[in-house]
Amino acid sequence: MIRFNNDYNRGAMRCVLDAIESAGSDSFAGYGEDERCERARETIRGAVGVPDADVHFFPGATQANFVVISSMLTSVQSVISADTGHINCHEAASVENTGHKIIELPNVDGKLTAAQIRACAAEYYLGGEPEYLTEPKAVYISFPTESGTLYSLRELREISEVCREFGMYLFVDGARMGYGLGAERNDIALADFAKYSDVFYIGGTKCGALFGEALVIVSNSLKRRFKAHMKQSGAVLAKGFLLGIQFSALLESGEYFTLCRRADEQAMLIKNAFEKKGIKMRSQSYTNQQFAILSDAQKATLARDFIFEESGTCDGGTVVRFCTSWATSDDEVKALVDAVGRL
Amino acid sequence: MIRFNNDYNRGAMRCVLDAIESAGSDSFAGYGEDERCERARETIRGAVGVPDADVHFFPGATQANFVVISSMLTSVQSVISADTGHINCHEAASVENTGHKIIELPNVDGKLTAAQIRACAAEYYLGGEPEYLTEPKAVYISFPTESGTLYSLRELREISEVCREFGMYLFVDGARMGYGLGAERNDIALADFAKYSDVFYIGGTKCGALFGEALVIVSNSLKRRFKAHMKQSGAVLAKGFLLGIQFSALLESGEYFTLCRRADEQAMLIKNAFEKKGIKMRSQSYTNQQFAILSDAQKATLARDFIFEESGTCDGGTVVRFCTSWATSDDEVKALVDAVGRL
Amino acid sequence: MIRFNNDYNRGAMRCVLDAIESAGSDSFAGYGEDERCERARETIRGAVGVPDADVHFFPGATQANFVVISSMLTSVQSVISADTGHINCHEAASVENTGHKIIELPNVDGKLTAAQIRACAAEYYLGGEPEYLTEPKAVYISFPTESGTLYSLRELREISEVCREFGMYLFVDGARMGYGLGAERNDIALADFAKYSDVFYIGGTKCGALFGEALVIVSNSLKRRFKAHMKQSGAVLAKGFLLGIQFSALLESGEYFTLCRRADEQAMLIKNAFEKKGIKMRSQSYTNQQFAILSDAQKATLARDFIFEESGTCDGGTVVRFCTSWATSDDEVKALVDAVGRL
Amino acid sequence: MIRFNNDYNRGAMRCVLDAIESAGSDSFAGYGEDERCERARETIRGAVGVPDADVHFFPGATQANFVVISSMLTSVQSVISADTGHINCHEAASVENTGHKIIELPNVDGKLTAAQIRACAAEYYLGGEPEYLTEPKAVYISFPTESGTLYSLRELREISEVCREFGMYLFVDGARMGYGLGAERNDIALADFAKYSDVFYIGGTKCGALFGEALVIVSNSLKRRFKAHMKQSGAVLAKGFLLGIQFSALLESGEYFTLCRRADEQAMLIKNAFEKKGIKMRSQSYTNQQFAILSDAQKATLARDFIFEESGTCDGGTVVRFCTSWATSDDEVKALVDAVGRL
Repeated sequence: MIRFNNDYNRGAMRCVLDAIESAGSDSFAGYGEDERCERARETIRGAVGVPDADVHFFPGATQANFVVISSMLTSVQSVISADTGHINCHEAASVENTGHKIIELPNVDGKLTAAQIRACAAEYYLGGEPEYLTEPKAVYISFPTESGTLYSLRELREISEVCREFGMYLFVDGARMGYGLGAERNDIALADFAKYSDVFYIGGTKCGALFGEALVIVSNSLKRRFKAHMKQSGAVLAKGFLLGIQFSALLESGEYFTLCRRADEQAMLIKNAFEKKGIKMRSQSYTNQQFAILSDAQKATLARDFIFEESGTCDGGTVVRFCTSWATSDDEVKALVDAVGRL
Repeated sequence: MIRFNNDYNRGAMRCVLDAIESAGSDSFAGYGEDERCERARETIRGAVGVPDADVHFFPGATQANFVVISSMLTSVQSVISADTGHINCHEAASVENTGHKIIELPNVDGKLTAAQIRACAAEYYLGGEPEYLTEPKAVYISFPTESGTLYSLRELREISEVCREFGMYLFVDGARMGYGLGAERNDIALADFAKYSDVFYIGGTKCGALFGEALVIVSNSLKRRFKAHMKQSGAVLAKGFLLGIQFSALLESGEYFTLCRRADEQAMLIKNAFEKKGIKMRSQSYTNQQFAILSDAQKATLARDFIFEESGTCDGGTVVRFCTSWATSDDEVKALVDAVGRL
Repeated sequence: MIRFNNDYNRGAMRCVLDAIESAGSDSFAGYGEDERCERARETIRGAVGVPDADVHFFPGATQANFVVISSMLTSVQSVISADTGHINCHEAASVENTGHKIIELPNVDGKLTAAQIRACAAEYYLGGEPEYLTEPKAVYISFPTESGTLYSLRELREISEVCREFGMYLFVDGARMGYGLGAERNDIALADFAKYSDVFYIGGTKCGALFGEALVIVSNSLKRRFKAHMKQSGAVLAKGFLLGIQFSALLESGEYFTLCRRADEQAMLIKNAFEKKGIKMRSQSYTNQQFAILSDAQKATLARDFIFEESGTCDGGTVVRFCTSWATSDDEVKALVDAVGRL
Repeated sequence: MIRFNNDYNRGAMRCVLDAIESAGSDSFAGYGEDERCERARETIRGAVGVPDADVHFFPGATQANFVVISSMLTSVQSVISADTGHINCHEAASVENTGHKIIELPNVDGKLTAAQIRACAAEYYLGGEPEYLTEPKAVYISFPTESGTLYSLRELREISEVCREFGMYLFVDGARMGYGLGAERNDIALADFAKYSDVFYIGGTKCGALFGEALVIVSNSLKRRFKAHMKQSGAVLAKGFLLGIQFSALLESGEYFTLCRRADEQAMLIKNAFEKKGIKMRSQSYTNQQFAILSDAQKATLARDFIFEESGTCDGGTVVRFCTSWATSDDEVKALVDAVGRL
């Protein structure tokens, strides 16, 4: 059986394992106060072009999401998200658990538009800030989205402008950042996120690390006492150096970018195979997640050799996600492409 | 410089690194639903003697503490802890952040007594359960404590009896479980925690793993939907298999027990060195943490070659913690013992 | 200017003021533990036909809503509500502030259907209770709804059946209960709420009291320590006797029912006046709230003599709420009806 | 039986009842946006000497306490209180329920000292603001305290200075403000609270109103969106005008001050009676609460004719609280004084 079920089913890139191995006998300060984390922070500050950005390492993405959001908001403020946003559908109400409402706006292909966000913000801010409403103070988007789709640079800029117009924070969930940056149709550079958002993260767990996400705080007003927020939610790893070591390895080797790009290319082969066969895709994804709409028979046939996840229904078929990753081999892709060809 | 500052300053035991390395190319189900986690669960169920215990793996101890406590309590219930308890002093009010009061009782050498707990519970339960008080529904203790001290089997049993008398849950924080079990004066076996508490964990982060804690839920009433509580707090690692692999390696090799016991023995050498020199220890610790009360001059001398942490003042001196770990070498201990001898 | 802006713009029914006045020099136990509260509780138990119901008095409805909901749910459970529900739109995210997600379902005329609720519950309960979702454990409906509409007895029974099928609590917000019971098309009796829901309240603030709501807990599993939940949210009035006195006066005099029914009848006159004029109503309300869709000119004309609230737009016009109450005089209604006739 | 059990066992001062009665047929805007609230606000701004203070009316004191505290703090900040503080002992952990730790400092006669507060603040602020600690950002004191004692003007000023030195908010719970201001030994004027604290309230419930507390926000940084915090906790009364009417009546008539002062004088007679009899008082209270330490026999004798509350034990006796109020008659006091004389 070949797994296309997700992008976190294998250990870590070679460079990561080697880096951990080679640091094995060294000793470090605790809680990310060590020189390996500092080095990774410098690498990241360079990569995003913001010398004074704060960089924090999280063990996982759900933690990053709710800690960032709850640290940005007072108890009478809320966050805008697409209804399909990861925080709204897959994290067991972790944001509400911190006391905040998610204002759900209807997605188009997993994305929000600047116009939608403006309308939502205007209702509150231009409507007299009524006391019976919470204040939409932050906007949460993902790059890539849950549907594998991408914001264009123009879309990102427009959303950023709305946020600045109303004084709202823009937070970009980059759990699959590597796959977004590597996509053929992508026109956003890593540094653009530092330019247009207030805080974002560079995902490690799904992009080649054993685990971990690197959060970049650009906005000064979000920096103070952020680590206390992390600590309070158990998001400060005792052996923080493990995260510094991994991100240094991923980014300095360049493998973060090259191996994720390869996964995107593999995903395009899979997409083409489905489309050649006349099988529709639920969204126009150019990243490592492809959502094919399959008949029961097609699903059953592919299930003989491949492991995948279902993701609801669409147009009378089942939506099936095929996910490549940094670890997917060309042989695995070929096997799937051939199987699709035989459907 | 030699680090005695804590027990989480180095990577992981050899057996752990090898196990991760050797699993490198395999692929797994996500979120701890894989066969490596299941194998580790079986190993742990066997080790604690409870075939139907639920076992969950956490990335870190703070998460384990607040997720367990908040999952046990309704919003009008609270948890009893020693005033020196880790949850009360070192976790940025993570328990209060979940909405619960910690009822602090004064510690003796880091410990609580059954009599203290009974008095506190009786005030509420025998006092008519007044609506203006929260209900003390859980008791949190650590083994070993923050002071390095240990509960005896009799003490644990007595506390357990009080808890059962009043229908309170007993939760044992075992972040340093390996060092507790390995201490020469310890008379509690791992299976005793399953017998006398409702939920406890076997610490990995400080005892030889890269990271991770293995939580054992014995009480049936705490099992339902526990994983949703974890998920909500971002405590379900996407690559959960990494935790299963580590705990299998630690426990099946037996190194968890032998290397922690060695660290305890090393700590005894350090303790003896101080006592021989007439230097007082703040508590009678038989585990890997030793708290010496040093003069400024003594502190300055040792600071030339060793890294350590200060922990307040006592009897006119500074309390200094020297911490051994699974990774401490005999040479390092010898260097410290010799330096103490020269004070 | 005549106020039709809401149903809480005047003091209280004569019987309420007299009762408070006549108790003026007596002294009472605090926090609702007095004989006047006990008498009101007995009256209510009789009226709802449940001798062992728990009855608690709240100062206001928002408190009642979030205290009841948060007391019913663990932190991984959520409540189903119409998207137009008061808890979802008018209470500044008070439910989310207690850590719980509101699962919004699209309303029809302010109401939910049993089929909608079943589909939502089935997705979770029959879908394997996935850990990344919260458990829908309670259903919140209002009688009458925010749109002034009413559930029929059949609809209430069907919703109740779905709730029992899946083990969910049914909570009825009765802030305007008096107006619901008094409507000409209503076929639900007060005792039916005790039969078909787990907890509901009889609204006082909008139905003739100075302030206060009487909560009836039918389900035994919701009774324990409920008053501690109230206390924790500041919902136990020190002079609780004031609430007992009021509800005794309202219910024993029968004025709660007769004066609210009169307000419904007045509302029908207003509704007829609009419809005779060819002006559309947004919903088919048979209770004291009527939502007319007015042109700007019509709105401006009526605004000369009447105070009212706008409630969004519909079909190119503005939705304007005209609200009668227990205190509305026939002269006031006549003035409005005449003015509408002259539009 | 004569009630000395508390100061909220009777309706309201005559001026309050008359004012409500006389407003009976008027209609008002909702939620405190009416002219009667505005008039009361102006009266209060004048009385405290701060023309731009924000004034909000709460139904009760527990609500005021937790809403103010939670609105002042981020989730990694905490509040300092005496261990005997009302928020720490009598409100079912309402502050912790909002996610915040109360840092308890040991009281002396119910009070905190500036030196204690400085030491606590310095540990955090001068100790490097460690991420594992919450930031003490607010100080909560009561005037009078739970023990009936009073801060002197000098003590208040010193506490204020410490708070300003470290950037902490000072919040004064004035649930019994009238009795504090009226005490013979008091040297603090109402306007001093506006001068030395950031936010405080003038208690109504215990000082002659039917219910309600008037909160005065002096510090500009606490004003924004405060009403949304109130709304979220159900603390905005629909018929807010009832609170405006009451505070106007209480303060404009001057009865708030004169009747509370009379209660203090009555309390002095009771105190003298006990002391003349050689019965010790637990604290030196000059306000309406007196805490006598009685033998079982004395307690039993007085219990024949008087209702009172017990408040723990002290020096081998039971602490018994005798509470006068604005409604206590001289005959009632004489009866008690005589009974004490006969002990």
